[in-house]
Amino acid sequence: MSELVTSRLVDPAADVAGLTEALIACPSVTPATGMVFDCLEQMLAPMGFAVHRFQAGEAPDGPVENLFAIRRGPAGTRHFAYAGHVDVVPPGEGWTSGPFAPTRRGTPETGELLYGRGAVDMKGSVAAFIAALRDVPQEAGTVSLIITGDEEGVATHGTLALIDHMNAAHIRPDLILVGEPTSVHRLGDMIKVGRRGSVNMWIEVEGTQGHVAYPHLADNPITRLVALLAELKAIKLDEGTDWFQPSNLEVTDIACGNKATNVIPQKASARISIRFNDLHTGQSLSDLVTAIAERHGASVRPVISGEAFLTPPGAFSDLVLAAIKAETGLDAEVSTSGGTSDARFLKNLAPVIEFGLCNATMHKKDEAVAIADLEALQRIFTRITLAGLAAI
Amino acid sequence: MSELVTSRLVDPAADVAGLTEALIACPSVTPATGMVFDCLEQMLAPMGFAVHRFQAGEAPDGPVENLFAIRRGPAGTRHFAYAGHVDVVPPGEGWTSGPFAPTRRGTPETGELLYGRGAVDMKGSVAAFIAALRDVPQEAGTVSLIITGDEEGVATHGTLALIDHMNAAHIRPDLILVGEPTSVHRLGDMIKVGRRGSVNMWIEVEGTQGHVAYPHLADNPITRLVALLAELKAIKLDEGTDWFQPSNLEVTDIACGNKATNVIPQKASARISIRFNDLHTGQSLSDLVTAIAERHGASVRPVISGEAFLTPPGAFSDLVLAAIKAETGLDAEVSTSGGTSDARFLKNLAPVIEFGLCNATMHKKDEAVAIADLEALQRIFTRITLAGLAAI
Ligand SMILES: [Zn+2]
Ligand SMILES: [Zn+2]
Repeated sequence: MSELVTSRLVDPAADVAGLTEALIACPSVTPATGMVFDCLEQMLAPMGFAVHRFQAGEAPDGPVENLFAIRRGPAGTRHFAYAGHVDVVPPGEGWTSGPFAPTRRGTPETGELLYGRGAVDMKGSVAAFIAALRDVPQEAGTVSLIITGDEEGVATHGTLALIDHMNAAHIRPDLILVGEPTSVHRLGDMIKVGRRGSVNMWIEVEGTQGHVAYPHLADNPITRLVALLAELKAIKLDEGTDWFQPSNLEVTDIACGNKATNVIPQKASARISIRFNDLHTGQSLSDLVTAIAERHGASVRPVISGEAFLTPPGAFSDLVLAAIKAETGLDAEVSTSGGTSDARFLKNLAPVIEFGLCNATMHKKDEAVAIADLEALQRIFTRITLAGLAAI
Repeated sequence: MSELVTSRLVDPAADVAGLTEALIACPSVTPATGMVFDCLEQMLAPMGFAVHRFQAGEAPDGPVENLFAIRRGPAGTRHFAYAGHVDVVPPGEGWTSGPFAPTRRGTPETGELLYGRGAVDMKGSVAAFIAALRDVPQEAGTVSLIITGDEEGVATHGTLALIDHMNAAHIRPDLILVGEPTSVHRLGDMIKVGRRGSVNMWIEVEGTQGHVAYPHLADNPITRLVALLAELKAIKLDEGTDWFQPSNLEVTDIACGNKATNVIPQKASARISIRFNDLHTGQSLSDLVTAIAERHGASVRPVISGEAFLTPPGAFSDLVLAAIKAETGLDAEVSTSGGTSDARFLKNLAPVIEFGLCNATMHKKDEAVAIADLEALQRIFTRITLAGLAAI
């Protein structure tokens, strides 16, 4: 804990909704530092966790705060880790109540809802995991929390720095649950056992400027770029796999900036985004696109956001599905859809599965979570943690 | 002439180089009015021309001054017209001597050169035609000059307004020579008997914005634009004609402006330029592109800059070629290449052919004309005018 005297931000004995409210009340637009981590530490320290906090990075991407908390079980027991983030996206306009002033409202149809930025993505999930541990005895095994303040931003100083810390301390979990909001219509209707990888590529074609009346004296870079993009769009990267949908390429920008109607421009550029399954890597796709681009005289600068990962369905997913079924009655869909998450980094430590609240209001105004969902999630997390610690 | 007393800007008895110097010394960046027309009037009035001057248009495209001068021959004789402009493009930077301070320099290799903005495009040509008329007796027929101050700019209040004036006065030449700089390497190596038409089209595709991870929920407008542009580039508009090269389509700009790497954008746009021969019209091409674009869900806004024209090689081109050959020994190439000119408007009055000075330095710094070329052009213009007035 910081040397400064920190005011009491949370009653550590509060229920899951109270813990969630305490976290929402700490504004933490990405990248987050300080108060929201003080609040977290005030929850975890009384429960017997050793809490390590550190900052990394500099403006504008930082500073970022990260927190690793561990409660060690008896020697020889297993280690179950929960990973998540307490930074949030900017609130935007139009909220009914203050985004950082947690407020309960509801109707007979919706039940009681808790409003505030981060309610589902993912302060409510972090609170549910902490509350869940009240029913996980220390004897059951080692439990840790891997919490970053830099997931919604550039993520360069967040989970990667936490993994460095864990590696340096020779700490390696057996299983990792990422608590991101994976549910769609009802809590428990979807878990993620993988994510597609993501690579962006900046494509540039340099031609020879000239007058449109004399095209033979010029070399129109747009002509070559259009042919290249048409060829790229025509590629069938794959047919999908048992667990992944087909990889997909989208052109996300095109640019030239030539104002003169009678001039063939000098340069044209485009940016593509490929979301790919585990049949590819960022590098293999960069090589593929570069080879095609070279035939069109284009250059390619790839930036790999994350590789695809898959925790093949098996013992881990079975215990998560069983915990969900026991509390909700639902057979969750086992999915690999959607954008990237920090699971792309954590997969290098241990098998990773993602499960959390309903994502319908995430990143929107009036983000809200049903209090009944928080309570159910707490119970599901207790089941998952106990089963994870018991698993062979 | 204006009611104001105008100072003497030119010695009407000066030789062709002197007349050119007088015109260059009147700064006339497009759109031009005033002094350069006073100068012209001081040359033409003493030669027996009735000079009509008028202004048209408003800022920013105007005001523009135009001049129509006519010297009527005996009843029943033919009417030969010369068309040109006395506005010039902005001088730009880096001149060795002042762009509006005509200066003679030369080496034994180049011969004596006259430097100044407009030397070849096309004050030297206007001066050569006026000097040429000293050897064209009034009895030979009617001669006129159609001179605008708005050829290098938007050209909305220039030659079109002069044509309106001529139509209103029931004046219709039998032949029109446009004195633009058509020569390439040597004076007399090229004439133009036609020009391709030109149409620009602004293409816009509206899609549905979304996240790249969920392409099935979005509709990427770039995908459709790329397919449309690839299809347009694959069209063979024609194979060319006896007198024209094939029509050509260039994509001159593409734009989207999407900064977010993970977003499928809402809109994408492009601009194309088609230079077309007399197998097409601006309207027929607009209809063609619009029909294809509609299949891709794109909208098209065409702006026709000018229609193609051709004065089929025959008696008129023969007499021009003969005049050039007699003075230079060259067999000029009969061409339809290059950009548009005011001949695109004048073709509606009479057969038009373009011939003038070497265009190597036009629109550049240190624009210059060889004084020997001015003198040769004067002699060629005398031959063309006499032959044009004599032609059946
Ligand atoms: Zn999140
Ligand atoms: Zn010109």
